[in-house]
Amino acid sequence: MSRRYLNLTPLSEALAMLRREFSSPGRAETVPLAEAVGRVTAEPLYAGYSVPMADIAKFDGYAVKSGETRGAQDQRPLPLAGYARVNTGEVLPRPFDAVVMIEDTWDEGGIPRIRKSAAPGQNIRRTGEDVRAGELVLPKGHRVRPFDIGALATYGITRLAVRSVRVGIVPTGSDLVPLGTAPGPGQTIETNTLMAEAYLTGIGATCRRYGIVPDEPGLIREAVETAVAENDLVILSAGSSAGTRDFSRDVVEELGEIVFHGIAVRPGKPVLLANVGGKPVLGMPGYPVAAQTVLREVAGSLLAWWGLEPLPFGELDVRLARRQASDLGFDEFVPVSVGRVDGTCWATPHPRGGGIQMAVVRANGYLHIPAAREGIEAGEEVRVRLTVPPASLARTLVCVGRRDPVLGELGNLLAEAGYHLHCCNASTVGAVLALRAKTCHAATVALPETASAWSDQVLRYLPDTRLLRVPVARTEFGVASADPPDAGSLASLRVANRPKSAAAQFLLDAWLDREGIDASPSGEPGDIRVCSALEAREAGLRFTSIGYESCDLVIREELAAGEGVAALVEAARSPGFRAYLRSIGRDPGDGDAPGVFSV
Amino acid sequence: MSRRYLNLTPLSEALAMLRREFSSPGRAETVPLAEAVGRVTAEPLYAGYSVPMADIAKFDGYAVKSGETRGAQDQRPLPLAGYARVNTGEVLPRPFDAVVMIEDTWDEGGIPRIRKSAAPGQNIRRTGEDVRAGELVLPKGHRVRPFDIGALATYGITRLAVRSVRVGIVPTGSDLVPLGTAPGPGQTIETNTLMAEAYLTGIGATCRRYGIVPDEPGLIREAVETAVAENDLVILSAGSSAGTRDFSRDVVEELGEIVFHGIAVRPGKPVLLANVGGKPVLGMPGYPVAAQTVLREVAGSLLAWWGLEPLPFGELDVRLARRQASDLGFDEFVPVSVGRVDGTCWATPHPRGGGIQMAVVRANGYLHIPAAREGIEAGEEVRVRLTVPPASLARTLVCVGRRDPVLGELGNLLAEAGYHLHCCNASTVGAVLALRAKTCHAATVALPETASAWSDQVLRYLPDTRLLRVPVARTEFGVASADPPDAGSLASLRVANRPKSAAAQFLLDAWLDREGIDASPSGEPGDIRVCSALEAREAGLRFTSIGYESCDLVIREELAAGEGVAALVEAARSPGFRAYLRSIGRDPGDGDAPGVFSV
Repeated sequence: MSRRYLNLTPLSEALAMLRREFSSPGRAETVPLAEAVGRVTAEPLYAGYSVPMADIAKFDGYAVKSGETRGAQDQRPLPLAGYARVNTGEVLPRPFDAVVMIEDTWDEGGIPRIRKSAAPGQNIRRTGEDVRAGELVLPKGHRVRPFDIGALATYGITRLAVRSVRVGIVPTGSDLVPLGTAPGPGQTIETNTLMAEAYLTGIGATCRRYGIVPDEPGLIREAVETAVAENDLVILSAGSSAGTRDFSRDVVEELGEIVFHGIAVRPGKPVLLANVGGKPVLGMPGYPVAAQTVLREVAGSLLAWWGLEPLPFGELDVRLARRQASDLGFDEFVPVSVGRVDGTCWATPHPRGGGIQMAVVRANGYLHIPAAREGIEAGEEVRVRLTVPPASLARTLVCVGRRDPVLGELGNLLAEAGYHLHCCNASTVGAVLALRAKTCHAATVALPETASAWSDQVLRYLPDTRLLRVPVARTEFGVASADPPDAGSLASLRVANRPKSAAAQFLLDAWLDREGIDASPSGEPGDIRVCSALEAREAGLRFTSIGYESCDLVIREELAAGEGVAALVEAARSPGFRAYLRSIGRDPGDGDAPGVFSV
Repeated sequence: MSRRYLNLTPLSEALAMLRREFSSPGRAETVPLAEAVGRVTAEPLYAGYSVPMADIAKFDGYAVKSGETRGAQDQRPLPLAGYARVNTGEVLPRPFDAVVMIEDTWDEGGIPRIRKSAAPGQNIRRTGEDVRAGELVLPKGHRVRPFDIGALATYGITRLAVRSVRVGIVPTGSDLVPLGTAPGPGQTIETNTLMAEAYLTGIGATCRRYGIVPDEPGLIREAVETAVAENDLVILSAGSSAGTRDFSRDVVEELGEIVFHGIAVRPGKPVLLANVGGKPVLGMPGYPVAAQTVLREVAGSLLAWWGLEPLPFGELDVRLARRQASDLGFDEFVPVSVGRVDGTCWATPHPRGGGIQMAVVRANGYLHIPAAREGIEAGEEVRVRLTVPPASLARTLVCVGRRDPVLGELGNLLAEAGYHLHCCNASTVGAVLALRAKTCHAATVALPETASAWSDQVLRYLPDTRLLRVPVARTEFGVASADPPDAGSLASLRVANRPKSAAAQFLLDAWLDREGIDASPSGEPGDIRVCSALEAREAGLRFTSIGYESCDLVIREELAAGEGVAALVEAARSPGFRAYLRSIGRDPGDGDAPGVFSV
């Protein structure tokens, strides 16, 4: 029953097939004006009448006959003869043909006086100045903006026809539990259809989510038939890959024709498209980020082709902060964090696995690597699509290196000050290279506390650079065991785990060397574990310290005065942050060290 | 009772006063996840558990003990010993430690075989690979995006606290009638509060619109008191200028303190801000575009300061297509149409009157001229804020010149093809200069049909330029009267109106000259009117032709092959468009003329 996708269809070809196979359902619905924002007009809209409907006063003042004001001068002020008091927007009373602003008059004995004659038509808005009856207000295919609403209302339009596409979303999978249920092991919260609904609704589709369908071909068949009857596009969530329980293909093959199965896209490969009774049924992969790619690039493209407008996310030309590999023949999508450092916008990639939703949450954009490219070099200019307002980049700080969980709290403190902290994971070497290439505002480097680590691992790569080093948190590492190790048998000790960080590995190697122990971590059960003092305490283990790892913020001094970077440094040094560290059992280190290193 | 705004507060100062006076109400509300898109988090969100919760299979295949696969090679395939069939996402069963992809196996006698040994941990997603329990998912102050919804659901977050600002919107004015009512002369449809609600809801505020309050101080007072009690910000629509019926100031002065009245902004000057019981009450001008400025620049800034995120409209650096004057000391906002012509983005200004809502509807962005600037020169680089998705600029066509109403239908035809036609009004000279400076895709020029008009008014400004000229519509002009004019008294004929276009004026002058009539249009009642044949026919007047005006599309030949420009030319020449012209009694002219002019 399992099968491979023998032929992966290139994305461009898949989209062409989609267009060829499925023309727009051409559906429209009429909505009240107040509900029209974000919808796309299905018909052109024309003004119901002229605005203004009559000549009206442009300002508060006096309606006058211009002929009667002739001769008024600074040296020869004139009392108004015939006049009428008018307010802004009021219809000009007959037989007046001009308005004198109230600011240009003064009262003397109850009669307004002027110093300047009025020209015919002065300060009057003519009939139809804004719009003439019957004039086109919006063409079809226009995404209605909030301020359009006011204009449409002014022109007498109270209801309008907008494009409508009905999308049915069917979650399948016996392992799924609905949102709000705590999943057991092997169970998955059904979240992809919620996300699909949020995304497609934002584009302007009318979505309907159906109940979870277990992995039984008969039930899936029934659900697909219902959804196809009730919608213009059906999305089958999960079940589109080639596992034993992936029945989607069999079901849609029975009901209609497969258009393609498997596209050369990463993430998002196992996508299935079928034609069931002339309507598209799209099998969306279960990995959330893969599902996002399919929603954006396949479903989104179809909806755009059908006349809905995509979301107003901006595109931006930026430089890629580090090399990004990609496979020839695959369209790849990589979440990135974009920040402006010293005048240049840099995009730092996050991991792009289909299951790493946090990468997308942490990112503020994504990069599309076309199928014809085999990777993109560091420093190359690329176009990214933003998932945040472009203006927010001015308040975005990119920090590259160790993504210690305590940086979350630092992010919260910066959010208070209006800044967005983006932390991109990298090794110490990666962080230092990012500092050197100036692609980040700050780096977080984790070093063993030894005499030479700072100069060996940081300074040697950054000669002639003044750096600011701000301690964030220290971690005490050691070896832990349930029972005190027998001193005599030290030489035969087995270490049960690989240290989590390079610094802990360094400390372990140094300790083993000092103690004369010839043990390499095996990954098998052993006598001692390498862990932090906190972990040993929580697990109730006997702990022998092997040294400290310090995690520091490192900043090029020339950037430290920047508003956002200064806020970052202030937050890291703040008593609030240091109290937080102590509250969770972390060691704040010497937060008061000024830490300017000149090289 | 009327008064002036003696002191206009500069915008920057007004915003500083706003911030100083009104700190954030700090209100939050808890919403279900599905309603959180577009809202801003009020608290940081942490993962409820690790994802994955256990080690799971990354692909469909077989769970194996890596140790048992050692030795498998191309030359020495190995049958699997102990194994379990697993699907993508399933928990790895004990005691297996690796997964072999189904694609890398084949069946022989019901037993899967492999050609390559498996490494420990291969094809397994480790516990917490996506997120660890307790890890920060979103900091406070994050505007929730559609794809964030999926991640939050996956991490066990079903409800979240989002920032909430309650805005009460009170329409005032005895001339107002509610939407859906046909306004009589001097009546205005109450549209500004609808627009305010649409705009502020989009930013994330919770709006409440109150009923229309007539211009009676007692009633206004009551409405303000209610709205202040129920909201964090109150917007009083209209009544903030200095007319006789503008009671807003008196009412809020009684209830609280005026912070400022009148700011140096165009449009938007007559804005009023008061502090009533510690809450801001904002008097918004009645002119819709002025109201928009106040909503965007004042209310929007306050909401951003209070922690709501502005809408994700992009900013773009473009060149200004023509000089834009502005008054020193005033922050001015000008609606513009931005289009990319031959690789450069140009912004062409629309009229900026407070009452011209169509200008904003027609525009796709706006330009902010700071108070310190006295106008901006043509060609200068400026930053505009877009009101459309930036990607839509690639399909935007800017046409400068005569904005004949039939261009609306051309826009509809182009919308079918996915293009946005932006028509910016300009005189024939303005249109020709835009062609010369290449700031538009096309120009529409209206010329009298004489032997020399094309070369006098177009070609002389565009030497050495190959132009494509496509007829759009002709208009026959003439003089009309109720009774046949007495031939003998021709010399004393009075012309009752000024011709609407320069071309008609030219035709009239030539006719008067030919006929030896010494009459200048007076604007007073007269014997004959200048009008089109169509107007004369509709009014049942006797009509004497004086000639034709032709309105043509003019395009630089080098741009004519561009996808969008080609679609424009095709639409203008299409039988459908020409049939439309005839159906409304317009003369399509010679639409088949190829019209390439080489100079």
